[in-house]
Amino acid sequence: MTSPATLTRMIMAGQGKAPADLVIRDVNLLDVITGAVTRTDIAIVGDRIVGTHAAYEGGRVIEGGGRFAVPGFIDTHLHIESSLVTPHEFDRCVLPHGVTTAICDPHEIANVLGAEGIGYFLDSAEQTIMDVRVNLSSCVPATPFETAGAALEIEDLEPFRSHPKVIGLAEMMNFPGVLNADPGIIAKLAAFQGGHIDGHAPLLLGQALNGYLAAAIRTDHEATSAAEAREKLAKGMAILIREGSVSKDLKALAEILDENTSSFVALCTDDRNPLDIAEEGHLDSSIRRLIAMGRPLHHVYRAASHSAARIFGLTDRGLLAPGWRADIALVDSLEDCRVSDVVTAGRLVTPELFATRKPVAPVGLASMKAKPVAPEAFITAPKAGQNRVPVIGVRPGLILTFREEASLAATDKGLVPDLAADVIKVAVIERHGKNGNIGRSFVTGFGLKRGAIASSVGHDSHNITVVGTDDADMAAAVNRLIEMGGGFAVAEGGRVTAELALPIAGLMSTRPFEDVTEDLHRLRDAAYALDCVLPEPFLQVAFLALPVIPHLKMTDRGLFDVDKFDFVS
Amino acid sequence: MTSPATLTRMIMAGQGKAPADLVIRDVNLLDVITGAVTRTDIAIVGDRIVGTHAAYEGGRVIEGGGRFAVPGFIDTHLHIESSLVTPHEFDRCVLPHGVTTAICDPHEIANVLGAEGIGYFLDSAEQTIMDVRVNLSSCVPATPFETAGAALEIEDLEPFRSHPKVIGLAEMMNFPGVLNADPGIIAKLAAFQGGHIDGHAPLLLGQALNGYLAAAIRTDHEATSAAEAREKLAKGMAILIREGSVSKDLKALAEILDENTSSFVALCTDDRNPLDIAEEGHLDSSIRRLIAMGRPLHHVYRAASHSAARIFGLTDRGLLAPGWRADIALVDSLEDCRVSDVVTAGRLVTPELFATRKPVAPVGLASMKAKPVAPEAFITAPKAGQNRVPVIGVRPGLILTFREEASLAATDKGLVPDLAADVIKVAVIERHGKNGNIGRSFVTGFGLKRGAIASSVGHDSHNITVVGTDDADMAAAVNRLIEMGGGFAVAEGGRVTAELALPIAGLMSTRPFEDVTEDLHRLRDAAYALDCVLPEPFLQVAFLALPVIPHLKMTDRGLFDVDKFDFVS
Repeated sequence: MTSPATLTRMIMAGQGKAPADLVIRDVNLLDVITGAVTRTDIAIVGDRIVGTHAAYEGGRVIEGGGRFAVPGFIDTHLHIESSLVTPHEFDRCVLPHGVTTAICDPHEIANVLGAEGIGYFLDSAEQTIMDVRVNLSSCVPATPFETAGAALEIEDLEPFRSHPKVIGLAEMMNFPGVLNADPGIIAKLAAFQGGHIDGHAPLLLGQALNGYLAAAIRTDHEATSAAEAREKLAKGMAILIREGSVSKDLKALAEILDENTSSFVALCTDDRNPLDIAEEGHLDSSIRRLIAMGRPLHHVYRAASHSAARIFGLTDRGLLAPGWRADIALVDSLEDCRVSDVVTAGRLVTPELFATRKPVAPVGLASMKAKPVAPEAFITAPKAGQNRVPVIGVRPGLILTFREEASLAATDKGLVPDLAADVIKVAVIERHGKNGNIGRSFVTGFGLKRGAIASSVGHDSHNITVVGTDDADMAAAVNRLIEMGGGFAVAEGGRVTAELALPIAGLMSTRPFEDVTEDLHRLRDAAYALDCVLPEPFLQVAFLALPVIPHLKMTDRGLFDVDKFDFVS
Repeated sequence: MTSPATLTRMIMAGQGKAPADLVIRDVNLLDVITGAVTRTDIAIVGDRIVGTHAAYEGGRVIEGGGRFAVPGFIDTHLHIESSLVTPHEFDRCVLPHGVTTAICDPHEIANVLGAEGIGYFLDSAEQTIMDVRVNLSSCVPATPFETAGAALEIEDLEPFRSHPKVIGLAEMMNFPGVLNADPGIIAKLAAFQGGHIDGHAPLLLGQALNGYLAAAIRTDHEATSAAEAREKLAKGMAILIREGSVSKDLKALAEILDENTSSFVALCTDDRNPLDIAEEGHLDSSIRRLIAMGRPLHHVYRAASHSAARIFGLTDRGLLAPGWRADIALVDSLEDCRVSDVVTAGRLVTPELFATRKPVAPVGLASMKAKPVAPEAFITAPKAGQNRVPVIGVRPGLILTFREEASLAATDKGLVPDLAADVIKVAVIERHGKNGNIGRSFVTGFGLKRGAIASSVGHDSHNITVVGTDDADMAAAVNRLIEMGGGFAVAEGGRVTAELALPIAGLMSTRPFEDVTEDLHRLRDAAYALDCVLPEPFLQVAFLALPVIPHLKMTDRGLFDVDKFDFVS
């Protein structure tokens, strides 16, 4: 909180009667309200802008050199875990892209570690330079159809509510539970009435949507068509346009962002991996593309900043004006949105600034509680002599899967893959130390001619998912994962050919994001060496176990038919 | 707070699986986001809309008959005291105009009664049907140049902060105190950092405005020109377009309200008396006029509702959509904005609904602590034989005054009025029992040929202000005020010819607003019978003592030169 002495300095510096702490000299300031661009200095004291539209002197000066100044960007919904690095490394990786606030839902780590995972994120959020805010994971476990590491009831969430980094309740993805008034869901919703509740309601429309919204759920990041988004806007939902590594909705939703709606629209990434961040950027990339698609420029920047702040009750930020939090991105061109400097809470973002953060001890280092498996664990016996089996159909870039079928040969080692037909094995191994389940089935679409690919990232319960042509390679990859404390592994010819350890809850690396990016390149290459035809094999493995996305999914409890909402018998 | 059982009913009714409590059938619903108009039912459970864009059944039905439904209006800054009636009567008078939320600053009663006055408003706010919210008066006393009834430091305000009806700190009108970092002001501003702080900064621009805003002051209702408002908007202030009984800024500011700005603009009345409410309406009148002036229709309605709610952190209201507070005005035509029915927090506004309110005991019934005066109290001796004296110049409809001069005859009863030149006496009598001060001078512009007009409403310290041609009539009017416990009085020929008692702190009537309106008509007529030429004589008397408005003002401590910011020597 601002002390009386600091407040006095702010008032005096704003009037030009005392020097500012920091002056960004000579920028073209974008007003996201009117679209006006004004050449000016920006004076800063403490964490706050104190002067614009005038010349200022200050203890430290950043030469703007006529660059454009825009309000720092706000990612309104993301799972930092999907960046595969710690919040500290996410901070170092993404803040230079102008993202000064990230509103995260620690849903992945909470599914593994429960409250301990949320605590880890809040501890990290107190250290990051970026303002990391947390919505409390509402749906742990995400579904009853798989074995998760933890369950969070309202009693488990309550202790976190008063934490200064907590905003509200995270994405309420169990919309059937809302509509059926499931008592556990109602208890969570009731506790957050009057506060913020994030939504997640793919394809929910009409009176069902009304029922969901009647619980005062206020946002949605799951609209995938403009028509869906328009109905949701008309019913008072703020639309968070998502552009992640897997789910990419920007192209379909761009048209909804205009002069009328820009105060009710924001941007988010949901899940974005370090490769995409390195190659495309983060919200800067979304802004660039929306402008290129003809959306009105200052309304795009408004959605990325002030609108996002308002929607989530962050009343101190989102405008470049005296009295507002000094979260500022400098770009050479408004259309290009290439961020060259970032100031957040009044501090220029530099390597030295990141070095001031205190480390947070990693958690979940012993989260891989599965026992090593033998190749025989993957033997899949035919059911009562039936060689024709259901097969999960995978398509590039879709987490949606399809139900296909294949006739497979049965040997003394059970049903065997049919490489000519691109039908290989898939298994999910419970790894939370609860029951040792192994679910087994078949998948098509990977193109693997040899070897295996395994991942301990497996939405949303994060058991071990492995696909492969060969039981020995599958066992090798899985066992290496267990040894590493989680991660990704590719095995071929009985040995592991590429790997990335993710020892924090089996989800996040302890290493710098640059190293993780390099390893991901190596992993991709190793997968391609197996003749894998999917551009992003690890993302596709990671979503094979998500039983709320149609149509056919694999969990540790067995093959799940999402359309029937039951296991394949 | 919504209980789990009610929440369940809301979710079920929204889906159409259970009856709603109330259905407004067949309305044309205005979407203030996009401007779309949709023919639909509106389903309500408890205080909340649960369904739109569909047909619904409910326990109670209001036939919309194709009328237009718009979100209830929010008056973002007003002093209920200026309506001259209690908050209960204000509620009954103004809610039927569609004003479902009123954000008031009990600045007037606080200047008389201090914390007791704020407590009275908060007690009343818990009873009114309209949602009355309170910002805590920041500047009591308003100035050191007059004697007020109370002083409120931050320690006096703190106990009210957690009251559910309190939003933040009310209009920080002491902008010189902010810019000079007056310690008492800084203490108040520091305490409300991170909360809401209302502004009040007439004509403050440039770096001085920056200094003021550096304190995180967020709104302004004092802009009187479009250029002023545009600079304030560019510096992040929300602009509250004011149209009161005295200060009328709508015409000058209308042009700033457009597609770009509508989320940053709201409406307010500040001070509006019952005559104006009866004759013109309230915010409905402002909406009607803005639309008639060509402002984009749905953006006008947005400013009056959702924008206002967002600016003041009222996140539950301002849209007609499932999950939002059921504050709804029904109008026959969007352009005309004549409100025919109002629903607030899910209740149809009817006389029976008002009858359910518990009364709140009036306060400040003994606030007129001045002793009766003799006619001789108004004798004004010439200074050292100087007959040429400064005279306050009053113009119709302006609270701004002008410095004029006159040569007056001196008799054994001091300087005497010059009726031919329209120069009459003015006096301000301290009435808080502090010192018995009487300030005396002369005023021109009233046109009085006989008699006297007195008022215990005298912004902002609310001493007794009296103007008159005759010392005996002045004494008669003042003494009647003291007897009545405050109010307005007109005296002629030694007797009181019209009066209105305002016994609550000398500011508000205990009677119904209809009776007050009638009395105000009689008072006006009685003033006109004295040949008064001002259309609103009581408003002009009430602002003669406001020493922060240029140029020449009268306080109990003497004649005050606002330009020199000192008393006339």
